[in-house]
Amino acid sequence: MKFDTIIRGGKVATAVDTFLCDIAIADGRISALGDGLGIADNIIDAQGKLVLPGGIDSHVHLDQPDTPDVVMADGFESGTRSAAFGGTTTLLPFCLQQRGQSLREAVKDYHAKADGNCYVDVSFHVIITDPTDHVLGQELPALIRDGYTSFKVFMTYEDLVLKDYDILRVMAVAREHHANVMVHAENYDAIRFLTERLEAGGNTAPRFHSNSRPIAVEREATHRAISLAEVADISITVVHVSNRQAMEEIRRAQSRGLTVHGETCPQYLVLTASDLDHPGMEGGKYVCSPPPRDKESQLACWEGLQQGVFQLFSSDHCPFRYNDPRGKLTQKGRSSFRWVPNGIPGVAARLPILFSEGVGKGRIDINRFVALTATNHAKTYGLYPRKGTIAVGADADIAIWDPGKNVTITHDLLHDDCDYTPYEGLTVTGWPVTTMVRGQVVVRDGELIGRKGSGEYLQRPAS
Amino acid sequence: MKFDTIIRGGKVATAVDTFLCDIAIADGRISALGDGLGIADNIIDAQGKLVLPGGIDSHVHLDQPDTPDVVMADGFESGTRSAAFGGTTTLLPFCLQQRGQSLREAVKDYHAKADGNCYVDVSFHVIITDPTDHVLGQELPALIRDGYTSFKVFMTYEDLVLKDYDILRVMAVAREHHANVMVHAENYDAIRFLTERLEAGGNTAPRFHSNSRPIAVEREATHRAISLAEVADISITVVHVSNRQAMEEIRRAQSRGLTVHGETCPQYLVLTASDLDHPGMEGGKYVCSPPPRDKESQLACWEGLQQGVFQLFSSDHCPFRYNDPRGKLTQKGRSSFRWVPNGIPGVAARLPILFSEGVGKGRIDINRFVALTATNHAKTYGLYPRKGTIAVGADADIAIWDPGKNVTITHDLLHDDCDYTPYEGLTVTGWPVTTMVRGQVVVRDGELIGRKGSGEYLQRPAS
Amino acid sequence: MKFDTIIRGGKVATAVDTFLCDIAIADGRISALGDGLGIADNIIDAQGKLVLPGGIDSHVHLDQPDTPDVVMADGFESGTRSAAFGGTTTLLPFCLQQRGQSLREAVKDYHAKADGNCYVDVSFHVIITDPTDHVLGQELPALIRDGYTSFKVFMTYEDLVLKDYDILRVMAVAREHHANVMVHAENYDAIRFLTERLEAGGNTAPRFHSNSRPIAVEREATHRAISLAEVADISITVVHVSNRQAMEEIRRAQSRGLTVHGETCPQYLVLTASDLDHPGMEGGKYVCSPPPRDKESQLACWEGLQQGVFQLFSSDHCPFRYNDPRGKLTQKGRSSFRWVPNGIPGVAARLPILFSEGVGKGRIDINRFVALTATNHAKTYGLYPRKGTIAVGADADIAIWDPGKNVTITHDLLHDDCDYTPYEGLTVTGWPVTTMVRGQVVVRDGELIGRKGSGEYLQRPAS
Amino acid sequence: MKFDTIIRGGKVATAVDTFLCDIAIADGRISALGDGLGIADNIIDAQGKLVLPGGIDSHVHLDQPDTPDVVMADGFESGTRSAAFGGTTTLLPFCLQQRGQSLREAVKDYHAKADGNCYVDVSFHVIITDPTDHVLGQELPALIRDGYTSFKVFMTYEDLVLKDYDILRVMAVAREHHANVMVHAENYDAIRFLTERLEAGGNTAPRFHSNSRPIAVEREATHRAISLAEVADISITVVHVSNRQAMEEIRRAQSRGLTVHGETCPQYLVLTASDLDHPGMEGGKYVCSPPPRDKESQLACWEGLQQGVFQLFSSDHCPFRYNDPRGKLTQKGRSSFRWVPNGIPGVAARLPILFSEGVGKGRIDINRFVALTATNHAKTYGLYPRKGTIAVGADADIAIWDPGKNVTITHDLLHDDCDYTPYEGLTVTGWPVTTMVRGQVVVRDGELIGRKGSGEYLQRPAS
Repeated sequence: MKFDTIIRGGKVATAVDTFLCDIAIADGRISALGDGLGIADNIIDAQGKLVLPGGIDSHVHLDQPDTPDVVMADGFESGTRSAAFGGTTTLLPFCLQQRGQSLREAVKDYHAKADGNCYVDVSFHVIITDPTDHVLGQELPALIRDGYTSFKVFMTYEDLVLKDYDILRVMAVAREHHANVMVHAENYDAIRFLTERLEAGGNTAPRFHSNSRPIAVEREATHRAISLAEVADISITVVHVSNRQAMEEIRRAQSRGLTVHGETCPQYLVLTASDLDHPGMEGGKYVCSPPPRDKESQLACWEGLQQGVFQLFSSDHCPFRYNDPRGKLTQKGRSSFRWVPNGIPGVAARLPILFSEGVGKGRIDINRFVALTATNHAKTYGLYPRKGTIAVGADADIAIWDPGKNVTITHDLLHDDCDYTPYEGLTVTGWPVTTMVRGQVVVRDGELIGRKGSGEYLQRPAS
Repeated sequence: MKFDTIIRGGKVATAVDTFLCDIAIADGRISALGDGLGIADNIIDAQGKLVLPGGIDSHVHLDQPDTPDVVMADGFESGTRSAAFGGTTTLLPFCLQQRGQSLREAVKDYHAKADGNCYVDVSFHVIITDPTDHVLGQELPALIRDGYTSFKVFMTYEDLVLKDYDILRVMAVAREHHANVMVHAENYDAIRFLTERLEAGGNTAPRFHSNSRPIAVEREATHRAISLAEVADISITVVHVSNRQAMEEIRRAQSRGLTVHGETCPQYLVLTASDLDHPGMEGGKYVCSPPPRDKESQLACWEGLQQGVFQLFSSDHCPFRYNDPRGKLTQKGRSSFRWVPNGIPGVAARLPILFSEGVGKGRIDINRFVALTATNHAKTYGLYPRKGTIAVGADADIAIWDPGKNVTITHDLLHDDCDYTPYEGLTVTGWPVTTMVRGQVVVRDGELIGRKGSGEYLQRPAS
Repeated sequence: MKFDTIIRGGKVATAVDTFLCDIAIADGRISALGDGLGIADNIIDAQGKLVLPGGIDSHVHLDQPDTPDVVMADGFESGTRSAAFGGTTTLLPFCLQQRGQSLREAVKDYHAKADGNCYVDVSFHVIITDPTDHVLGQELPALIRDGYTSFKVFMTYEDLVLKDYDILRVMAVAREHHANVMVHAENYDAIRFLTERLEAGGNTAPRFHSNSRPIAVEREATHRAISLAEVADISITVVHVSNRQAMEEIRRAQSRGLTVHGETCPQYLVLTASDLDHPGMEGGKYVCSPPPRDKESQLACWEGLQQGVFQLFSSDHCPFRYNDPRGKLTQKGRSSFRWVPNGIPGVAARLPILFSEGVGKGRIDINRFVALTATNHAKTYGLYPRKGTIAVGADADIAIWDPGKNVTITHDLLHDDCDYTPYEGLTVTGWPVTTMVRGQVVVRDGELIGRKGSGEYLQRPAS
Repeated sequence: MKFDTIIRGGKVATAVDTFLCDIAIADGRISALGDGLGIADNIIDAQGKLVLPGGIDSHVHLDQPDTPDVVMADGFESGTRSAAFGGTTTLLPFCLQQRGQSLREAVKDYHAKADGNCYVDVSFHVIITDPTDHVLGQELPALIRDGYTSFKVFMTYEDLVLKDYDILRVMAVAREHHANVMVHAENYDAIRFLTERLEAGGNTAPRFHSNSRPIAVEREATHRAISLAEVADISITVVHVSNRQAMEEIRRAQSRGLTVHGETCPQYLVLTASDLDHPGMEGGKYVCSPPPRDKESQLACWEGLQQGVFQLFSSDHCPFRYNDPRGKLTQKGRSSFRWVPNGIPGVAARLPILFSEGVGKGRIDINRFVALTATNHAKTYGLYPRKGTIAVGADADIAIWDPGKNVTITHDLLHDDCDYTPYEGLTVTGWPVTTMVRGQVVVRDGELIGRKGSGEYLQRPAS
């Protein structure tokens, strides 16, 4: 047999198996796995390397609409480029409905931003901020039919928060049409109350961001989101869980037999609230929500990953430049933590951090790494079996890792359009040296090989 | 020594002790406890009887403002009269702030309704429905100083519901001024969502009231109320808990070291959702919120009482006449369960039910009965040590019980101004045969002896 | 009226109430409580003082049989004397059956030791070490009929340990005859295994006592004891709980509706394992089982007391002299922690420590103090209502406390026959200044007034 | 390329992936997976079939030593034959050390029984019943070095029970030499106590077997086994879990971060205690330990499988003929349930039952089925990656299933040497139509093709 490409001699891992074999690729798909598989136009030597499914990052913010005050650092070009450098081959960024906007229009806007600009494949989750009867009755079902099968609702942020009634209505539509619902679980009212109290006390520095969103606020909303899902009789994903109490709420629900997916992110494994406590505005670099907590919370998040409470490990990449008056250093942000843009970059650093801190330090094995970073995302969000694994018939989305390579993370290695990384200086062992999307190499040895626009949009069937 | 009254030879019980002795009363207070205590003007023979602190019912609705559709069945006269017949000597009815109304005005209105009309002592909890800056900043602190030291907030009902932000603000005032907060914990939005769905499906009979408020809706709000209290750093009382899941939320909080008081009511011990399933509108007689659940929930409520998760047993007396177009049978109520007035009477039946089903059937001992029906109410709401126990110096509020008396509950025994009791036909063993308030007999052997207006208003100090 | 004694003007507390009143005593019993109660031969001024039920210590070891190596420091004279100095008026020491000995003989031996030697009242728990068919079938039922209604079984110690089968047989007898079972819950086999390993590694200093009995060993036995009680369908008391995990096992059982009483002791509130880590043999002063743990465990024990998981606070007084070759410093004990006599003195220090650390520091209120130190012991072990409260008809066993008195604990204040106290140097606020047993003052202002032999033996009815 | 065998066109499932492809086999191993893979001597058409890893049954009793009273129904020939008919390609039967016997001798005996008689591959777990110093110090380490890397200890059965001390010693050896420990968790002493009580009451019919081993007895031992593992710092497998309480103990341990594997068996999914309640001795057919419980327990076992608390699904095949005076109908067994041989057959029925009740009824997906029946066994017991999955390089142990085939289970379909099946009459959908071991077909379409003796013994490396 003749193939387009053969990856030779690597150690292949799926979410359950690890084995040495060649991988033959034809027409962008995995055609065969085997010993000494025939010939090919391209031979990639993977001896001594790990050959993994390319990462799927199902929690990414790119090119969300500018406001007068703030502009997001990454669009689809730089975001997908950075992803490829980090071993990730599929992104699921959010398409944000602005209040008053139709969903269809929002989706159209995002396609315009994405089309022709991507280095890896993408698909959109739609953020519902304005669930009018028309949106829920007409637009949403139509979008689901068109392959936009996952939605996100927010329980906080002035401009995004839905009341429980509307969350339930979104869930009801999702249930009827077999779509997925993601929830950002923090209690808006409590954050507002605490923020006002902190500001009234003159506590406006970035570090007070943490105080305005204590663990109880996240635990409360997590339990509420789960309860609403129970009332609506639907499974949900609780995104970016930061601490033990929220994790235990998810575990409780799972133990009751509810299908609740849990997600955590690198910031909850390696950062803490003390990172927000830098002089001046520097703490703003670490402002994201929920905020990083403490060492015990890091441990809890590891346990969530190890014990299967969390199935998803995402970046929540949400980049704002630090040295930018329309980034972290807005005039309003300088006046109070309340106005510091919430979010940090991480799409490229996600996998190396989990690989090094998780697999390298013996906290998880390589199969769980694959599950947490690829397979489970594909299964949760309707991309499986096309994406998320190494199996005959799947897209040849592959990251070849050098498991022994030591790298000290610096911003220039990440190739995003932000101007800092919260992980600057962190040394990791293990790095993705080759990233392939549908059989084409996009990044090799730190060099961008892929063509802009080669990334495709992925429709996803309802579940 | 010479006393006004001596109660001779009864078996006296407090929340911890049980002993045979005489009780001497002077100037409305308990002056001495002892063997063969001197002489008195009045000797009440209590041989073979139980002598208990008069009941305190800290959850009672009386004479709340009429609406065009609905009028409450009991005012202060009939409500306190019924209480006395049921062995209760202190009521804490709610003073309901109407939206737009000042708290001071609301309180004044209620005093006008109560003054000169009471047979037992009363004190008001204030329901906050309109927490403006002025209400929270000026009125509430002033009221606390004047002895109105407990507030109730609602997480449901169109006209009463507060958003979490406002609940937190009320809690913050209560914390600063050492007042108490009671919470009605059901999720308004979820009830609205479910109600609309039920109505859309043509499910409008009274029994669908239960379906519109499933256990998850109460559990959710219970956890949220506790979380808000945690954020505000204050203790709270979760009223009328109806089921295991909500009970376990309270236990979890208590186990974490939070001070959360739990209350349940007779309807959750002896009624179930099937009581709502009578033909026609008859089920409306049992419509209250949360709705009675099932046998397992009854068991859970008993466990809550037995194991100390619940400290308070109240009636949630909230009477609407059945055969009354402005009671249970409103025109709107006939069109949908949504409009059936929520509430059932119970101020007189409360104690006999708990005595018979609890003490009589060996589920609780007599001391816990006293704690649950009197002492804990007094301690929770600032009436202790004046009320709630039999001890030297306390008010001589006493109920003498015939523990062996068999009574089949019928509405005419209860002496309220409602026209039915949900407990009609329930046979109990044990009945309060004499009720005294501050040394004066109010009810004896089923006869009203007391004078209207002899009941006093009780100011309560901040805690 | 004329009484023997009146205690005037004190603040009286029971397990639930607190009130100012006089207490009149006649014939050793409380005759009346009241304002300005007549006259008496003796007037004790208690103005500004707290008047509490005398303490009951239901976990005390006195005069257990000598071995060639070890002799216990306190007999009934010194033990009850020390108790009186510490505000305690009833002791329940253990009567230890030696293997091969009949229970009746064991009881007879202990009466011989106690009779005529006690300053406070006593009653025996019987330790069953040899549950032959005759012991269980004949002796035990007969003893219960004679008022020996509580038994203790050990799950550890070479000479005392019963296998589960025998524990179940003891429980079956207790159930049939309505007696109480106390359990020392540590896993003997695990301790043996760990001890051998420690010794094999040369780790023989006193501090390794802690390592030989880790928390898992106590948690395991606690769960097992509860399970056996569940199989036998009987309530039990788990004594001297030292940590959160064991406490949570008890809470779990209570939440399931089982009647499991929990007890903790002063050593688990104010000592830690680091106290065992003194140079040379000095750590031996703190060797007791379970061993004191760490600060988190102290916190857990406080929570157990606050939240009602523990109903009993006892001393586990088990005294061995430090400077004594037949006390802590045995030749064998110097060779390995395994042979250091297990036990520390505490009968006098128990109440002041709980009063100061608990009531004084706001962790518990005075009523819970009374419950934990007197009332609950009386109720659990069949002494109520004669003992354990201040109520008409009860024995006038009373401790008058000066709540503001500052005392630095030194061994000479405690009046036992040991030669040290593990609490040396601990400063407490609050001290029992007068101790009365059945109306007779035993200790006043640090002076022994009582007569040896005035303490009586108490028979206890089956429950 | 030329292969020995190609399985063409089946739907292949691993513990995580499902994909359509051909499987090429050479030299008994899987050589390639792919679309349209070259040519082969044998082509097996698997269109419309499921191609799964052959089952691994890690809990099987075969040919255990006869006693005067009882003889086991299956030896290695019939046991492995039956396994093959049920889609299972590897068995791990127990090698039972008899008291007084050396382990080496026991192993030698079992090899003599197995050698030349097997149709599928086998490997032994060694049951330790006599852990002398020599056994633990010499024999066990040597056996581990030789590839006998898993041991089982019993907490019950007169002839097998180890005391906790000995369990700890076995665990310590396993820890040092990286072997696995399996635990049968029931409390022997409690069973003895209850059995004696039942017999004393004349309750000797087979159904009282259930009453002698209530859930608390299993929960207790489960918690104890876990605690001992915690003390010894080792992971364990708790075998044949039958109910929620025991399952929750395992979940608690897993949540604390301990590695505890849980196993359940078909009898706990489809039988209940009522099956033991047949007239005469017929209930004896269902006597196994722990006994089947009730419907709620079945549900709990399903939840354990669904939620990942249980990783292993085994048969606990332990066959005794019903119509045999040395089987279920021993003379002693007729006198009391205590003597009825404990155990039921199930090695062939295991997989069809889980497939039909689990996958067929939507309780688990096909990937979890593979994990529970093959992959996890291989990973737990050192057979991975050689066994337990379909991946390049693995042994070609494969079961081809017809997922739509309806079969009513009757004993003659199972091909064991027992004379009944407890699952007689159960109709299942889905059946293994071809079973291959290392590339050779053993059973095809209900016909035995394989050669006796073709099954090999598997050495397993320490973990």
